[in-house]
Amino acid sequence: MAHGVKKAAAIGGGVIGGGWVARFLLNGIDVAVYDPHPEAKRIMSEILANAERAYAKMLLPPLGEMGTLTFHDTIADAVKDADYIQESVPERLDIKHKVFAEIEATAKKGALIGSSTSGYKPSELQDGAKHPERIFVAHPFNPVYLLPLVELVRTEKNDPKALDRAAAFLTEVGMKPLHVRKEIDAHIADRFLEAVWREGLWLIKDGIATTEEIDDAIRFGFGLRWAQMGLFETYRVAGGEAGMRHFIAQFGPCLSWPWTKLMDVPELTDELVEMIATQSDEQSGKYTIRELERIRDDNLVGILQALKANDWGAGQSLKEMENRFYAKAHAGSAKTEIEDGKPLQLYSTQVRGDWVDYNGHMTEFRYLQVLADGTDAFLIFIGMDETYRKRGLSIYTVETHIRHVRECKAGEKLTLYTRLLGKDEKRLRILHEVLNEAGDVVCTGEHMLLHVNTEEARACPMESPVTDRVETIARAHGGIGTPEFAGRPIRTI
Amino acid sequence: MAHGVKKAAAIGGGVIGGGWVARFLLNGIDVAVYDPHPEAKRIMSEILANAERAYAKMLLPPLGEMGTLTFHDTIADAVKDADYIQESVPERLDIKHKVFAEIEATAKKGALIGSSTSGYKPSELQDGAKHPERIFVAHPFNPVYLLPLVELVRTEKNDPKALDRAAAFLTEVGMKPLHVRKEIDAHIADRFLEAVWREGLWLIKDGIATTEEIDDAIRFGFGLRWAQMGLFETYRVAGGEAGMRHFIAQFGPCLSWPWTKLMDVPELTDELVEMIATQSDEQSGKYTIRELERIRDDNLVGILQALKANDWGAGQSLKEMENRFYAKAHAGSAKTEIEDGKPLQLYSTQVRGDWVDYNGHMTEFRYLQVLADGTDAFLIFIGMDETYRKRGLSIYTVETHIRHVRECKAGEKLTLYTRLLGKDEKRLRILHEVLNEAGDVVCTGEHMLLHVNTEEARACPMESPVTDRVETIARAHGGIGTPEFAGRPIRTI
Repeated sequence: MAHGVKKAAAIGGGVIGGGWVARFLLNGIDVAVYDPHPEAKRIMSEILANAERAYAKMLLPPLGEMGTLTFHDTIADAVKDADYIQESVPERLDIKHKVFAEIEATAKKGALIGSSTSGYKPSELQDGAKHPERIFVAHPFNPVYLLPLVELVRTEKNDPKALDRAAAFLTEVGMKPLHVRKEIDAHIADRFLEAVWREGLWLIKDGIATTEEIDDAIRFGFGLRWAQMGLFETYRVAGGEAGMRHFIAQFGPCLSWPWTKLMDVPELTDELVEMIATQSDEQSGKYTIRELERIRDDNLVGILQALKANDWGAGQSLKEMENRFYAKAHAGSAKTEIEDGKPLQLYSTQVRGDWVDYNGHMTEFRYLQVLADGTDAFLIFIGMDETYRKRGLSIYTVETHIRHVRECKAGEKLTLYTRLLGKDEKRLRILHEVLNEAGDVVCTGEHMLLHVNTEEARACPMESPVTDRVETIARAHGGIGTPEFAGRPIRTI
Repeated sequence: MAHGVKKAAAIGGGVIGGGWVARFLLNGIDVAVYDPHPEAKRIMSEILANAERAYAKMLLPPLGEMGTLTFHDTIADAVKDADYIQESVPERLDIKHKVFAEIEATAKKGALIGSSTSGYKPSELQDGAKHPERIFVAHPFNPVYLLPLVELVRTEKNDPKALDRAAAFLTEVGMKPLHVRKEIDAHIADRFLEAVWREGLWLIKDGIATTEEIDDAIRFGFGLRWAQMGLFETYRVAGGEAGMRHFIAQFGPCLSWPWTKLMDVPELTDELVEMIATQSDEQSGKYTIRELERIRDDNLVGILQALKANDWGAGQSLKEMENRFYAKAHAGSAKTEIEDGKPLQLYSTQVRGDWVDYNGHMTEFRYLQVLADGTDAFLIFIGMDETYRKRGLSIYTVETHIRHVRECKAGEKLTLYTRLLGKDEKRLRILHEVLNEAGDVVCTGEHMLLHVNTEEARACPMESPVTDRVETIARAHGGIGTPEFAGRPIRTI
């Protein structure tokens, strides 16, 4: 559905607010920020740096244009022309009410107002608002720019259409909106986190486990399951053919057993706090928080990509996000002019952290990945898109000649310059030159592409509109000439 | 440390017992199984099929030789020559005591006896045993062949050395042993699962969320965090620069708030069971359990690989496992004879599920991955190992010519035949021919390798022992001749 959100505002730019801002900006949405913190700009720039780094690794398509970030001295000024407003101020109801009053003073009538609160019910937030129907809970999870989940909670005062618009907008910035049926303290996810947190406090207090042992018990075990299936689907599988009823029958009795202490919660004495903090220092003290954030982000990026490859769970949110970025990129490249005597510049990318070997250099086969992605961009440019493919026509690479000229490191930006070396009715011979930011050649790829009828699995002549595009490019590139290294074999020794 | 385990026995071959057997066998350990279930062999073969499939996708090195599986009619017969015995019978103390008695009747004196119990304390298991010092808890997580975590719990009766041997053995089959300091009902991980389970029951009973909504709240949010960092490290990061003390101070008050219902547990009425089972059918009913298992395994494989790429958490367990498989494979290839007039067969692999594109065919750049892995195997074969590299000498691929001859699908086995086409003092020109199981050529790769001094970053002559190995191969391959497609360029059009 059309959500009509063109501009967003963020009230509060800390870990959560800043994460929202990063997600909006990286998805091309302009954001107006209000945060009275004296170091608001520094904190925001640090969060944004981490988020840009993560997106460059997470998204295979080019990142495209970011939204514009502006800082404002008053809430009234920040929200006045925003279509979506996200509140992420400290968890105190009096502060939140004060903020909502200032927002309502200048916010557009149809503005959507989401709160990042992890504990308060929307009815508590709406209390005393002029237009309670605009205010709802949009509870995200840290890091907001990577984790898709956002819990949407409303009351009977809310306009359901407004919530649908909010969901449509949040989906478009790569999130997974979860509509919570009834308002309840801490919504859904945080209730589990609170239960686990309380049990964890008991285990530490009773000297059963340290923070590190508890973390290992999670990340080497059920945490891996929960990154892709939840509690019930996991148990459904464990239950086997007999299914859930059997599983519950089997484990039902445990409910009366002392398998958790959560009939009561421990008192947070100074000793307990000290014990946890010290254990945490021993566990993670060797890293700064920024380092831990980057480690966490790299792991989440890899996990999301792994799930994407299986078209499952949070990987589907990433897939849809990538498709939007690809669409933008192709719209861009379609606009590229074909200039006489100049190679085409259709694709650029960034060496991802998981592309490098133990030496920190891009792994050999990733060179072909970059070249093949460049070939895909070229094929879309000449009109070989979904519509053309649906006609049962496609092009396969039948031969490749790579010259590995220099190493490159994670984070390096690579730009491809592509020229058409030759063609006949069924074949295209193209050359990619891959340059780094310094303008040095990283590698070159010469490729022979064969046009095929995919149903009959045989070579066949190209058809319009591809033929016309190829004709135009052939004329424009005719004058460039062929470099000495092209069209020759690997030297014999 | 030396664990001295050559043979294992498994008492009980269900979902958990079968998972243990699969992990042992795939890591080259012989296993003797006792399971009175009439369909024990069928169930085992199904679990083993899933496990083999997952390992082929998870491990880049060749799988190597599997252990031998034998079925036995009595416990006494199954355990008599086992060094490690794993009990995975139903969770009833009387049954477990009966089983331990039968095990002790014929088990070797020094045998290690682990129990998969998720609830009982080791002291309860040891009760009435002849040699309680051999019996301990080794609690794994489903799927046992993929999840590294195993909780080791002992009593003061146990011999700590025995537990260390068990830990060393379990580490060698790719697991992450977690020594639990004090015995406690449900150990550590299951206490969290129980707390989350109880909270989940409340949310469903109160109509706040369905099984599917709860699963989404987990897998699109904190589940992704927990696959790589646990509870405390995640919160340490969320706490920011101020660290754990600050975080606890901030969230401490919640302990007194109704953020979880876990002061009390719901009654498992027939209505509640029916509600959960029905919701679960709606959520996952479109898949059979076997399908869900494979989806789960593919996701876990991808997640573990992603964590491996970042050398973090459970990915480190996988990395060490791969290194053991590589070592085996290289030991094998080192034994390969160099035969006159015959290409070398040093590397074979299997097309992994995440290597295929939306058409189900191996993605273009994965062809170079297979060829590059074959080149690595060749380099180790000619003596270019860690020791040689430590001398500051290495070889880089400077040029590659690939002929993409045919498509291949996920699961296809590929075998590489490698020959030396030419050499001089600094360079090697090699050719890989990649064949599928039917013997058809899938692709060929011609590669020019340049020998370099890595410190001075310049080409330099090869040294002994590499030079001698290369000489021998050159003599043996001299007679094979060069195929017409080698040493020629991509045809000009």
